[in-house]
Amino acid sequence: MSNSLAITTGPLPASEKCHTAGRLFPAIRVPHRTITTHPSAGEPPLSVYDTSGPYSDPGQAIDIAAGLPRWRQTLIAARGDVAAYGGRPVLPGDNGGQASVPPFPRHHAPLRASKGMAVTQLAYARRGIITAEMEYVALRENEGRELAAAILRDGQDWGAAIPDYVTPEFVRDEIARGRAIIPCNINHPELEPMIIGRNFRVKVNANIGNSAVTSSLGEEVDKMVWAIRWGADTVMDLSTGRNIHNIRDWIIRNAPVPIGTVPIYQALEKVNGRAEDLTWEIFRDTLIEQAEQGVDYFTIHAGVRLAHIPLTARRVTGIVSRGGSILAKWCLAHHRENFLYTHFEEICDIMRAYDISFSLGDGLRPGSIADANDAAQFAELETLGELTRIAWARDCQVMVEGPGHVPMHKIKENMDRQLESCGEAPFYTLGPLTTDIAPGYDHITSGIGAAMIGWFGCAMLCYVTPKEHLGLPDRNDVKTGVITYKLAAHAADLAKGHPGARRRDDALSRARFEFRWEDQFNLSLDPETARDFHDKTLPKEAHKTAHFCSMCGPKFCSMQISQELRADAGRLQDAKQARDAGLAVMAENFRNQGGEIYAAKPVGE
Amino acid sequence: MSNSLAITTGPLPASEKCHTAGRLFPAIRVPHRTITTHPSAGEPPLSVYDTSGPYSDPGQAIDIAAGLPRWRQTLIAARGDVAAYGGRPVLPGDNGGQASVPPFPRHHAPLRASKGMAVTQLAYARRGIITAEMEYVALRENEGRELAAAILRDGQDWGAAIPDYVTPEFVRDEIARGRAIIPCNINHPELEPMIIGRNFRVKVNANIGNSAVTSSLGEEVDKMVWAIRWGADTVMDLSTGRNIHNIRDWIIRNAPVPIGTVPIYQALEKVNGRAEDLTWEIFRDTLIEQAEQGVDYFTIHAGVRLAHIPLTARRVTGIVSRGGSILAKWCLAHHRENFLYTHFEEICDIMRAYDISFSLGDGLRPGSIADANDAAQFAELETLGELTRIAWARDCQVMVEGPGHVPMHKIKENMDRQLESCGEAPFYTLGPLTTDIAPGYDHITSGIGAAMIGWFGCAMLCYVTPKEHLGLPDRNDVKTGVITYKLAAHAADLAKGHPGARRRDDALSRARFEFRWEDQFNLSLDPETARDFHDKTLPKEAHKTAHFCSMCGPKFCSMQISQELRADAGRLQDAKQARDAGLAVMAENFRNQGGEIYAAKPVGE
Repeated sequence: MSNSLAITTGPLPASEKCHTAGRLFPAIRVPHRTITTHPSAGEPPLSVYDTSGPYSDPGQAIDIAAGLPRWRQTLIAARGDVAAYGGRPVLPGDNGGQASVPPFPRHHAPLRASKGMAVTQLAYARRGIITAEMEYVALRENEGRELAAAILRDGQDWGAAIPDYVTPEFVRDEIARGRAIIPCNINHPELEPMIIGRNFRVKVNANIGNSAVTSSLGEEVDKMVWAIRWGADTVMDLSTGRNIHNIRDWIIRNAPVPIGTVPIYQALEKVNGRAEDLTWEIFRDTLIEQAEQGVDYFTIHAGVRLAHIPLTARRVTGIVSRGGSILAKWCLAHHRENFLYTHFEEICDIMRAYDISFSLGDGLRPGSIADANDAAQFAELETLGELTRIAWARDCQVMVEGPGHVPMHKIKENMDRQLESCGEAPFYTLGPLTTDIAPGYDHITSGIGAAMIGWFGCAMLCYVTPKEHLGLPDRNDVKTGVITYKLAAHAADLAKGHPGARRRDDALSRARFEFRWEDQFNLSLDPETARDFHDKTLPKEAHKTAHFCSMCGPKFCSMQISQELRADAGRLQDAKQARDAGLAVMAENFRNQGGEIYAAKPVGE
Repeated sequence: MSNSLAITTGPLPASEKCHTAGRLFPAIRVPHRTITTHPSAGEPPLSVYDTSGPYSDPGQAIDIAAGLPRWRQTLIAARGDVAAYGGRPVLPGDNGGQASVPPFPRHHAPLRASKGMAVTQLAYARRGIITAEMEYVALRENEGRELAAAILRDGQDWGAAIPDYVTPEFVRDEIARGRAIIPCNINHPELEPMIIGRNFRVKVNANIGNSAVTSSLGEEVDKMVWAIRWGADTVMDLSTGRNIHNIRDWIIRNAPVPIGTVPIYQALEKVNGRAEDLTWEIFRDTLIEQAEQGVDYFTIHAGVRLAHIPLTARRVTGIVSRGGSILAKWCLAHHRENFLYTHFEEICDIMRAYDISFSLGDGLRPGSIADANDAAQFAELETLGELTRIAWARDCQVMVEGPGHVPMHKIKENMDRQLESCGEAPFYTLGPLTTDIAPGYDHITSGIGAAMIGWFGCAMLCYVTPKEHLGLPDRNDVKTGVITYKLAAHAADLAKGHPGARRRDDALSRARFEFRWEDQFNLSLDPETARDFHDKTLPKEAHKTAHFCSMCGPKFCSMQISQELRADAGRLQDAKQARDAGLAVMAENFRNQGGEIYAAKPVGE
């Protein structure tokens, strides 16, 4: 094989993969990562959410050519509502002509719903059925915090309804109401299910994908594994060049996270890039092709209606969504309504048969601060609300995509309007970027907006990398994008008062205060970078226990001084007692007791 | 000289330094940077705020050993209220014993207020006097936008009072009310004055400084020049090791921006790091030493009162401010009230004699999410309000420092309380960091909080670099920290509806939409990085005019499609007309007119 397949495996530092079995479904094994701290901390290992899949489990052999274990197959089959079938043959056009990437070595006959059956999580939830996937995500969301002594509820949740503990019944209820989705195509049995909804942890999506200009198979599979290692909850494969069918197969067969796509990209390849030549039949065929492969959610730009397009004419940056511009072009070329809109019910029927979730695309999202919250954007949002209700009526799971470029003062309106227009269907936004003037730093301009909209109620944040607007992200960019969005999502969880969120902050801060440097690294989102930055100025092993860092040096460490003060300050707690005892006496005590507390602990001792 | 003094000079790409003369004070020459765009844009050069000083002006010779021109001397002398005097001799203890860094080669006799004179900008403002500094900052704040045709006012300013144009009279009024300060020690005549206040552009401070563990003179002067090149509005020299007097001299003599310090750091060096040995006399001597050098603002931790210290005893991270922990230690060792608090009026008298601004230190700021907005923090804030009023009564300019580590939902309370407690004196915060779990990325965790608190009314944001909590920032970290905070400050200005803010976003977005790649780079906060990222995937010169980038490739560029759609969509503006004209006819027109609009513009043509 011409493509290199070097995949990063193995646990993160001081971390172990643990599994929790289900009660309703004993066969499920829900993964968490436990981070062990130094014995001096006297703390149990911290259990954290783990998106990394089998790759971080030393107990599991990884064979990219075999794919991940198809463990969900038995559970899906047990429901008795699906059947395998021959499936659509792979055509040369699926790969944009001659494929240079080989097909995935193993063929699996696709499943689809048996006649008359609705196999979506929404359909089950509405019928009162708790699925294995629902119990799985319930256990997963709790991050083991049911073992923690006290639940901290300190936040402003803007009307969310986050429970202390997530139960399978709560999950069922949220899905039944359309407030959450579990993207889980029945043809993606390798999946470790996860849930997207306002009342759960804020999630992060990472985009990967080759383009006509660059990238290869090995790179893309590795980017997927790399992205989930650092915390991506879902991955979108936005490939557009040749080989896209085969690359997608390799990615899905090795993905423990939901994979999303934008099928119009591939459909456009099939008509040689001529948007006006797109037809419903070609698009439909592409949906089925990808449904059989196991794509978990599709971005469908059905909200780009003919009548909305003129609203973009005076924008500074027009239409910046690729899908949106393709469909706008089709609409204008034919002067007909968007065929995704006119065929929306048929799209629902296909997606229901595989339990593919909708991600209703915001093809008219603003591409600049100037265009934020304009008529085109909100006209489309209204349509997305209308489509949400149609999809729900057909038992399809739905989330709704959002912007884009939005200054801070216009972010909340986006969230509020989406909740209202789309009946609380989960919102899934790209950033938003809070200024246009920092290309090269758009992971940060957008991380600001992402943290805020996550706080306000956005369920999933699509990452932006430092290369946004400039080029294709490489491996380092993917990591930077994912970590930036993980910290933004976590900041949102903290601000919402998510009951499990602060455990990790507190554990890390205790480690920081107690000079447990190794614990501080290991508890962080990116232990490698934290350690590397520390070592750049204080590389010796002894510095890992030093009671100072290079920022202030030994004489000035506020944490050290503060630690030493604590014992004494305790005695001052009762101010009256302090007065009574006589300040002079107390001062004397402090001197006698404290000794030379400023003396630096010599490095290496 | 043993220290290398390589300083980065020269203009940023496509940029020119322009100067505007004053009307009231024709001698002042207020700098702006104009960025020229491609002739095809048909746009005048964009004028932007310029912090970089003479270093980016090819017309000025730079000689670090001579220092910058002392242009403000004449203006200060003209006021007739200061006198030169012999000054305090430099003692070996000022440099922590033997100095390895040589003294700055030129000695200037210090100035101080003549007997009975109040020489602060606040004193002048209250007397109705518009100073040269006031006119300077008024012209500077406008960024040349008085030349722009239309003023955009679109924001939520939370009760600020930002004018369309800043006039010298408005500046005077804001200073007189205590809502803004111009830090400008009369012994820092090299300064290009700037203003800090809620009704002006949000400012950014960069910290530099050696520590006992690392750093040298050359590095620190270079870091200052480097920080202002990328947009730092003020620089704090937080040096703590040996040579601090001499390094400070070199920095101030070459600094066009206000320099702030924390004098207690140096005082502590003079007592060999034993906090309990600190005395008012030693501290007072240090204030005068630094006042004569020209430090523009002092962080004074007078709010760390004895009674507040016990409130920190149950914190997760105790006292994390260096100054705060030093003073807490002193208070407990002596069981006496903080000597900065008891001598506060005398401190005011010193600072008034040189027009040094207060930066009232938040020694009890929270160092973790767990400790945010707690009793210790807010008790200190109340004291800072009390001290603000005392300083104002003595004609001293004041800003107030703020946290720290604060989750998003607790940020606004910090701003609101500060405005109330401190009578709208400018707030100056460190971040705040919105989560503790991302060491290595704390420029981002804090950039989120900084953008938000800037929006809410914070006047200046103290940057945080990626090395925060881990080590001393190097040159790259300084740049990353400054750019991150510039984009956060700008996002805040946009959200507040600052009338000049959106010009640059719109100019850059137009460049982006029109594929003027060079303009997109040049209009960005960091042209070097933007260009470098673009070139990583599309290095050829021809790609600088290509109508696509490597993210999507030629067939998928939404901007390109969108541009092509615009002409046509215009015809659809009137939906009724479109209906009347007949959709089929319009479709025909589009096809005939548009031709093969998807065809890639071949690279290189």
